[in-house]
Amino acid sequence: MKKYPPAPLNKTNVTTSVTTDPAKRRLFLKSGLLAGAGLVSGSASAASSSNKLLPHWSRHLGPGVASTGYGVPSRFETDVQRKTLDWLRARRESSVSFSPLQSQHGIITPSGLVFERHHAGIADIDPNSHYLLIHGLVERPLKFTLSDLMRFPSVSRIHFLECAANGVLNYPGAQYNSLQFNFGMLSCCEWTGVPLSTLLKEAGVRKPAKWILAEGADAAALTRSIPLDKALDDTLVVYAQNGEMLRPEQGYPMRLLLPGWEGIINVKWLRRLELGDKPWETREETATYTDLMPDGKARQYTFVMETKSVITSPCPENPMAGKGRVSINGLAWSGHGRIKRVDVSVDGGRNWRTARLQGPVQNKSLTRFSMDWDWNGEVALLQSRAIDETGYVQPTMAELRKIRGIRSFYHNNSIQTWLINKNGEVENVQLA
Amino acid sequence: MKKYPPAPLNKTNVTTSVTTDPAKRRLFLKSGLLAGAGLVSGSASAASSSNKLLPHWSRHLGPGVASTGYGVPSRFETDVQRKTLDWLRARRESSVSFSPLQSQHGIITPSGLVFERHHAGIADIDPNSHYLLIHGLVERPLKFTLSDLMRFPSVSRIHFLECAANGVLNYPGAQYNSLQFNFGMLSCCEWTGVPLSTLLKEAGVRKPAKWILAEGADAAALTRSIPLDKALDDTLVVYAQNGEMLRPEQGYPMRLLLPGWEGIINVKWLRRLELGDKPWETREETATYTDLMPDGKARQYTFVMETKSVITSPCPENPMAGKGRVSINGLAWSGHGRIKRVDVSVDGGRNWRTARLQGPVQNKSLTRFSMDWDWNGEVALLQSRAIDETGYVQPTMAELRKIRGIRSFYHNNSIQTWLINKNGEVENVQLA
Repeated sequence: MKKYPPAPLNKTNVTTSVTTDPAKRRLFLKSGLLAGAGLVSGSASAASSSNKLLPHWSRHLGPGVASTGYGVPSRFETDVQRKTLDWLRARRESSVSFSPLQSQHGIITPSGLVFERHHAGIADIDPNSHYLLIHGLVERPLKFTLSDLMRFPSVSRIHFLECAANGVLNYPGAQYNSLQFNFGMLSCCEWTGVPLSTLLKEAGVRKPAKWILAEGADAAALTRSIPLDKALDDTLVVYAQNGEMLRPEQGYPMRLLLPGWEGIINVKWLRRLELGDKPWETREETATYTDLMPDGKARQYTFVMETKSVITSPCPENPMAGKGRVSINGLAWSGHGRIKRVDVSVDGGRNWRTARLQGPVQNKSLTRFSMDWDWNGEVALLQSRAIDETGYVQPTMAELRKIRGIRSFYHNNSIQTWLINKNGEVENVQLA
Repeated sequence: MKKYPPAPLNKTNVTTSVTTDPAKRRLFLKSGLLAGAGLVSGSASAASSSNKLLPHWSRHLGPGVASTGYGVPSRFETDVQRKTLDWLRARRESSVSFSPLQSQHGIITPSGLVFERHHAGIADIDPNSHYLLIHGLVERPLKFTLSDLMRFPSVSRIHFLECAANGVLNYPGAQYNSLQFNFGMLSCCEWTGVPLSTLLKEAGVRKPAKWILAEGADAAALTRSIPLDKALDDTLVVYAQNGEMLRPEQGYPMRLLLPGWEGIINVKWLRRLELGDKPWETREETATYTDLMPDGKARQYTFVMETKSVITSPCPENPMAGKGRVSINGLAWSGHGRIKRVDVSVDGGRNWRTARLQGPVQNKSLTRFSMDWDWNGEVALLQSRAIDETGYVQPTMAELRKIRGIRSFYHNNSIQTWLINKNGEVENVQLA
């Protein structure tokens, strides 16, 4: 949906003709039909009849293998960056960057574009001076260096990671006209590590243990309490993402991953796991990361990031290129498990059609959906609604507020509406 | 299996004791048991009783969100690079770099580490000046800009990509003691693009068409002939890898992907597809990329990269850290489809055990396998043998040579042997 100018014509008589034949309106292709088909038939040299008319890169040798052993994106893609807002990076004690979902394809977020949320900046850890302690209510307190950890059988799984505050900027009054700033505290990687259950087995969990305190090695010494059940279920101590070692801003050399649970509990730069019989009531699970309910009480431990979806193209950053057929494309995810269905509406939720899902649909992973749409050039209201394998249906903002009231701001999984204007521009709107 | 020195002890009385109790020999952990368990029980402050003893990163704020919007690996991981050999990069007309499989985790190869093979260097293409022609035996010759292509419904699939020449350096006489140089022309990404069948439907294939010529926009104008059946099956015109636009060295802004087929036919910088009734017999499918058989004839069109596997840890770059339990880890793949089973031998192929496969096992994708092994410190010969869903069994070098003779050098999928020396060093050997 990116707007590129039409390809410049060279002198090989390849001309462009926009089809106006209504019978051709089903085509996705707007301007590709070649007038005078004969000219390109048969000969392999037709398109290159005069070498001088070829672009530079078809006439001159390029550089050999990349001069650095670690490649970077094309110089024509430098606008694809995670971004922040001045007031969200002013203090190192609390900084955020948002992933450019409008430019993401497939379900994997490139490691260089994974969103960031730091509570004391990025810890730049020498792996030779780092270890993980497991202690408290265990038979054998243990200490793991990175190389110790890497001796254990590892697993690799594709899971999304979403900050509890993703969508905070999207409540009425703070709405940015942007996919990136409203949904970009969301990423999905292939994570490699050791099941925490394996490490706990080595340490030997003592009977009264019910909770685990996880602590980061950053200057925030960020701590959260984790129920033992989740620790023994699918929690991983991760050391790699997308095929390489963790990035510093993602917790190098080791972090927790609790698939489907709010970002902050996936403690980065993990240095300590202490087993105990009750939660620790740390700052990040009491003063913050709780949901203030209508009755004035704070709902504590909203662990699961509930079912959510968003259309990534079109969106404010990806306006409509013109009338005709287009593929609506988006992402859906659920902390409960697999996405079962995604519905798409082009009339603000009055009518819904079922979108295609991109398989294999993985557990607690981003899932791509798409739906063909013939845009007639009129104003439209695009929405997507995800349903997961447990039957949970993504709520509207009104439904969310009926339960949560207006003072709860974390865990916003409400349905998003994009207003398509006649000129193709896309606006972020909230329907009453 | 990387050798890190033991974590330096600080003054919190956390001491290291290597267990010599035979009852503990089943543990993967070599040095993590803490002497004096009492000292770390109960208090959350035990491990941080004196702030001054904590490392720098736990006492000082780190930088806020990454200063660049596109992150890079930790400064402690700079040795993880694709590498080449002087004689393989001397000429831009033919350069190669190898992916560091010894440092890859999971199945995704980070885009910055995907192997390279260029026939005229890297084409640095401005997407605004590039288009794809579909012509020849079609009803409607068509021209696609990148934005045209991106209007179509896309699919994203995880597939491996392997150069036909992967393993060439591993024939007797040219054996490097390295995983990277013998197996590193292999990578695996999530690829996003449009099925070629969709584009051919738009163009309308005319009856006599049986083959397609694919041409790159690099200065080699690299061309290969593709059977129409494969083009209509699972072939994609790809514009993204691992969630972002293709890297320049991977064919930006568009390339072919023929899942499971030899690397060179996955034409990069794709600019032209011409439909015809017979193969074109181009240079890269006659003079090169054919297999010279014992009878002196060249076997033409070895499209499928057959079933193969290799142990990635241990390997020459990942020596054994010491006796005891370790997780043997490796990769398997097949151009025929899914991997069904991988066997591992520690005695040069006399006895085999079935390895664990990492799911979900995907079609024509790298597949991780692992097997626990208690190394007694004696010399051992490690091998892996992959079997795919068609029943194809990865051959030994002797079996391969029985069919191919000694003059065929592409398409080497023979079983690899790593010799484990008593000191833990790993050697690349060929068994007679």
